[in-house]
Amino acid sequence: MNSAQPEFRGVFAPIPTPFASDGSIDWAALKDNVAWWCATKLAGLVVLGSNGEAGYLDFDERAQMVEAVVRQCAGRKTVVAGVGMETTGHTMKLAKAAAAAGADAVLVLPPHFYEVAMTGPILRDHYRAVADACPVPVILYNMPGNTGLNLGIETPVQLSSHPNIVGLKDSSGDIVQISEIIAGAAPGFAVFAGSGSYLLPTLVMGGVGATAAVANVFPDECAAIIELFEAGKLDLARQLQQALLEANRAVTSRFNVPGLKAALEILGHYGGPPRLPMQPLDDATRATLEGIIRRAQARCAEILSGV
Amino acid sequence: MNSAQPEFRGVFAPIPTPFASDGSIDWAALKDNVAWWCATKLAGLVVLGSNGEAGYLDFDERAQMVEAVVRQCAGRKTVVAGVGMETTGHTMKLAKAAAAAGADAVLVLPPHFYEVAMTGPILRDHYRAVADACPVPVILYNMPGNTGLNLGIETPVQLSSHPNIVGLKDSSGDIVQISEIIAGAAPGFAVFAGSGSYLLPTLVMGGVGATAAVANVFPDECAAIIELFEAGKLDLARQLQQALLEANRAVTSRFNVPGLKAALEILGHYGGPPRLPMQPLDDATRATLEGIIRRAQARCAEILSGV
Amino acid sequence: MNSAQPEFRGVFAPIPTPFASDGSIDWAALKDNVAWWCATKLAGLVVLGSNGEAGYLDFDERAQMVEAVVRQCAGRKTVVAGVGMETTGHTMKLAKAAAAAGADAVLVLPPHFYEVAMTGPILRDHYRAVADACPVPVILYNMPGNTGLNLGIETPVQLSSHPNIVGLKDSSGDIVQISEIIAGAAPGFAVFAGSGSYLLPTLVMGGVGATAAVANVFPDECAAIIELFEAGKLDLARQLQQALLEANRAVTSRFNVPGLKAALEILGHYGGPPRLPMQPLDDATRATLEGIIRRAQARCAEILSGV
Amino acid sequence: MNSAQPEFRGVFAPIPTPFASDGSIDWAALKDNVAWWCATKLAGLVVLGSNGEAGYLDFDERAQMVEAVVRQCAGRKTVVAGVGMETTGHTMKLAKAAAAAGADAVLVLPPHFYEVAMTGPILRDHYRAVADACPVPVILYNMPGNTGLNLGIETPVQLSSHPNIVGLKDSSGDIVQISEIIAGAAPGFAVFAGSGSYLLPTLVMGGVGATAAVANVFPDECAAIIELFEAGKLDLARQLQQALLEANRAVTSRFNVPGLKAALEILGHYGGPPRLPMQPLDDATRATLEGIIRRAQARCAEILSGV
Repeated sequence: MNSAQPEFRGVFAPIPTPFASDGSIDWAALKDNVAWWCATKLAGLVVLGSNGEAGYLDFDERAQMVEAVVRQCAGRKTVVAGVGMETTGHTMKLAKAAAAAGADAVLVLPPHFYEVAMTGPILRDHYRAVADACPVPVILYNMPGNTGLNLGIETPVQLSSHPNIVGLKDSSGDIVQISEIIAGAAPGFAVFAGSGSYLLPTLVMGGVGATAAVANVFPDECAAIIELFEAGKLDLARQLQQALLEANRAVTSRFNVPGLKAALEILGHYGGPPRLPMQPLDDATRATLEGIIRRAQARCAEILSGV
Repeated sequence: MNSAQPEFRGVFAPIPTPFASDGSIDWAALKDNVAWWCATKLAGLVVLGSNGEAGYLDFDERAQMVEAVVRQCAGRKTVVAGVGMETTGHTMKLAKAAAAAGADAVLVLPPHFYEVAMTGPILRDHYRAVADACPVPVILYNMPGNTGLNLGIETPVQLSSHPNIVGLKDSSGDIVQISEIIAGAAPGFAVFAGSGSYLLPTLVMGGVGATAAVANVFPDECAAIIELFEAGKLDLARQLQQALLEANRAVTSRFNVPGLKAALEILGHYGGPPRLPMQPLDDATRATLEGIIRRAQARCAEILSGV
Repeated sequence: MNSAQPEFRGVFAPIPTPFASDGSIDWAALKDNVAWWCATKLAGLVVLGSNGEAGYLDFDERAQMVEAVVRQCAGRKTVVAGVGMETTGHTMKLAKAAAAAGADAVLVLPPHFYEVAMTGPILRDHYRAVADACPVPVILYNMPGNTGLNLGIETPVQLSSHPNIVGLKDSSGDIVQISEIIAGAAPGFAVFAGSGSYLLPTLVMGGVGATAAVANVFPDECAAIIELFEAGKLDLARQLQQALLEANRAVTSRFNVPGLKAALEILGHYGGPPRLPMQPLDDATRATLEGIIRRAQARCAEILSGV
Repeated sequence: MNSAQPEFRGVFAPIPTPFASDGSIDWAALKDNVAWWCATKLAGLVVLGSNGEAGYLDFDERAQMVEAVVRQCAGRKTVVAGVGMETTGHTMKLAKAAAAAGADAVLVLPPHFYEVAMTGPILRDHYRAVADACPVPVILYNMPGNTGLNLGIETPVQLSSHPNIVGLKDSSGDIVQISEIIAGAAPGFAVFAGSGSYLLPTLVMGGVGATAAVANVFPDECAAIIELFEAGKLDLARQLQQALLEANRAVTSRFNVPGLKAALEILGHYGGPPRLPMQPLDDATRATLEGIIRRAQARCAEILSGV
């Protein structure tokens, strides 16, 4: 792996794609949200991740999203573009488009529809072909909750020695798998917690950060976990990690993308509707979510006031 | 459901998409294969099913595939087009394109990437919207092995009363679920076994046929199971069903799409390579598969010689 | 397998163990229930199956249960005793005790606590050792829902050639697995549906009957499915099978052993409480169950009135 | 929970039960092994855990094992006895016997055979009844890998306020679940990693130690992870944690109880055969295991030499 990629560490927000009420991308809303995230301690943004409804966008919309976010970030944040598609060819094509649009790296979800056929060797051939063809660094993306496929330990470890594969976002939640990957991978291979709920355990095992839905909503609080950890303030880091667990669950497995979008609205940013078949939260669920977000805000503020 | 759809019963082959060595669709090979299938006892063909590498094709390629198969069948077989995509909008668009290309019906895999968000109500809204918009009948498609999402019992039962939803291909392999759906659905709702390995059990519970990968390879043998069942020759039907089990597994879960394509080659038809990341069978695996196919051929011939 | 075991076919009821309110076995209630079951078309009774709370009984209680049921049946029904325990030694000991108490055969659940260690070879060695030591025939018992372990296809097929292993109760619900076992097993190997919900599909694939919780409650209705099937009256057999699906689910996965016991009470027989930690149904659930039982009764009567 | 239980923290070894070649318990071997463990930095021993083949022992053997280990420890180590059985009554009886034999606490695996019936309320009633009846403190034991049942978050959190329920061994490996339990439980509730592979992540989230198979083999190395963590030497703690991952897997999911026993033999202690159906490792597997153990020893020594 490429040893000189100091920017691939810290907290990344996998941003949602804002839609107007007619279902088209709301470019003005995107600009406002990006401006806010750029003013936080986030290390970077991931555009077209699972939270970005990437599979709900056309190819052209995806390229436009990458281009817009790169332009709006204007170098203030690292931009990673999700480009994983079902074929090797389509993935290469989107990876090149993302690189051309200025992405600093690409995040590559594995092909998974033919899950039983996606053996270790098949996946490794796929990733090597993509990494060979891609002008910018590749970050692997393990997301069994959505794909039904676990990359496991051996595949990331083997791929970590490829010169253009620099890291992994692991959303399995399996801290032992994450530990074994870090222990076995090439030096400098950057392993990110794929959810905000196990950022601190990942750090203590040698990971470099998180790419987490909750970081869209609590960017500085997530970044503070890393700062406190690095400063040796483990008690405060743990308290902060615990304070974010409920909100993290709310904007991921519990209320999903509609929950993430509603959480942004609760905080005064743009959320908007998801594309169908997903639907916005109903009022009762939104009220539940607001309670969760406000509790997390208050608790985090309390903890951070003591730093 | 629409009561006058007598053609949605019997054995359907979910055909593979033939690719040339450069990865493009091999239209001449498709024509030859379709000509063969049209000369069999198949009730129809499914184009762009899971075996058709539908997710590996561009939108335009999908529309072209439907148009080509419709034209080549020339009314000799019912043609069903797979059109399920991740968004309601994309699914509608492809469904309309398939209908415009002459498909007799569409087969609709559910959106599944955000599996935890795909609750019963969300899926039913999705299917109703698609069925309302689609000019030809809709057949539901349950395929948990590939999607990680099981449509279950309640959703097909509720949707069976929609005037433009005429049936279900259930690839769950769960014969109790299939039985409960048949028992609960509107009269005339056509339930197909989604794999050739439980065609006979599905028939005995009131199903109307199968949409099965193995029907690409053994079309008349699959059709004979239905004929024997309807003639009350249950022993022979069972023997034939058992004779196809090993081959059925080989062209589905065991060797997947590459196995199905190789099986067609073993029988003298066109198979060709899958698109990457899937790879053709290696020589040893192909030899194993050939043994399985030859055994099934011989055993079926032996059984059918006694009819 | 032993070719001369004509009694191992038909419908078997895996009877619950009746407890008095103090938790002891209620022998008088057992006698009354057995008297009723002996007056039905059941082929036999299974004592100490999963529905019998076998794992909730002491060793001595188990031996007493077998002895009591054998005595009360007095040769009117075949009696099969569940004897599977975690060690080979304990299983052998209980199998011998059951045989000594007069059981006609034993039903052997596999050891499963160390599930990952229970490989095919380990399980086959275990079953062969038990079958070698057991004075009466052995029936394999696959129950992944309770054990987390699926015996699969190869293990029953290989064991079917053992002279003292005569059959299998498969509660996996996987009709393809059942079909492959029947196709591969030694001639005469008796395969039973392990739940009443797929008796007819199992029969059409060559199975010999069912060992099903619902047979405790609807013994003659279950037996009628086989009679109708054998008489070639497939439509009526299917209607009856469908009519039992909801009640079958109620006394198994939905309301479990407490549901089975309550269903017996609804029909005027003895149910009684389960042992703790299981608890009797609450009143609302019991009312729901009563509706299900009454509907199934009425529908079965309607179907059978037309025979 | 009882606030004054300072001894329930640190590393506990869930010891295997040593059998002689005739299958009886080898009391002399047990004495030798216990003497060794007592000379280490272990906080305590768990007798009759999953690694102790508890389910392979008779009731009387279990009581004898607890009594023997208590006597041999002679107060030098805390002794916890596994007492979970399928019924509330049997669990109470064994818990009382263990307390009478001198156990300092009991570890209670949940009833799980009727997994779908084991709802949260049922499990909480069970645990409260056991804790009310038990003369010594109760530690909950979540072990989904063996039981197929996950206690989850809400049940331990609710039970943590019972005055006689002092902690939890969680073998789920789910660090988010562990984090949420710690965040929600009553103050002082002692949460142990249930496997040695996530001891350090559990500590950083507020857990108190581990009850881990690998601690039988590497007791001081496991204890050193805690010492280093508490001393703020996180890099060394992480290195040690990583150094034990492969050995931890070998003596648990990979080679199971036979692997744990063989590992003890490799280190010069008594292992002996498991009871049937489990079988000792074959020679090739033992050689593989020896390589793993030696590598872990060498790496741990290297790390600890730098402390």
